[in-house]
Amino acid sequence: MTPRINLITLGVADIARARGFYDRLGLKASPAGNDSVVFFDANGIVLALFSHAALAEDAHIEATPPPSFRGMSLAWNVSSEAETDSIYNHALACGARAVKAPQKVFWGGYSGYFADPDGHLWEVAYNPFFPISADGHIQLP
Amino acid sequence: MTPRINLITLGVADIARARGFYDRLGLKASPAGNDSVVFFDANGIVLALFSHAALAEDAHIEATPPPSFRGMSLAWNVSSEAETDSIYNHALACGARAVKAPQKVFWGGYSGYFADPDGHLWEVAYNPFFPISADGHIQLP
Repeated sequence: MTPRINLITLGVADIARARGFYDRLGLKASPAGNDSVVFFDANGIVLALFSHAALAEDAHIEATPPPSFRGMSLAWNVSSEAETDSIYNHALACGARAVKAPQKVFWGGYSGYFADPDGHLWEVAYNPFFPISADGHIQLP
Repeated sequence: MTPRINLITLGVADIARARGFYDRLGLKASPAGNDSVVFFDANGIVLALFSHAALAEDAHIEATPPPSFRGMSLAWNVSSEAETDSIYNHALACGARAVKAPQKVFWGGYSGYFADPDGHLWEVAYNPFFPISADGHIQLP
């Protein structure tokens, strides 16, 4: 079976705070969630919010404090520089922390980074080499 | 515009080592990649491998060493306990580190965790409440 990513879980310190941010950003929470876990459909992939400590416990890992850099980022790809700016500004207005203002980047695209209230890193990017399909997915060459 | 996740970047220490693992796991790399970045289609979402230090540099963040627990996990959802076991064992055979052998879990499902060569955490899960569509996506209630 070909590997796939169905769901991403972000460990958070406060479910209500994290959910508030993603609600404002525009995601719709599934009724399958509760006070301990929230599920959003992020266009075919599920974004889950779960307590940082509970995620570690579920994986049988020691729950070390969240690092300042996790070595991982999520990207929301869009179709223009203007759209990149617009979404980046929307994220900041929703309570994201500014990490890198959108700008032209060495690989020929245009991107910025913000962090959610728990420091999870998001990139907003316009990549002219990766067209976006009508249903919002990257068309990889 | 509704938020979406198009791509996940995993910061890695050695691109060739990481790519070898995901190749063995069964992902097909796009010709858009090169020695510095690899892109896989993980069923509508793109999985990218990029140097840990280069990701930090791109985001204008200080590149602290990878933590043992990143507070984040990727999940590959499947349709049975047997399939969970099979994929977990396949991942270990490909060079994954065993983190938690698949077992029944408190929320009524069955799941295990493994780590890729850089310690990125993957869950393999059978969630009887989240059916998988014919095209491999979770159907959220």
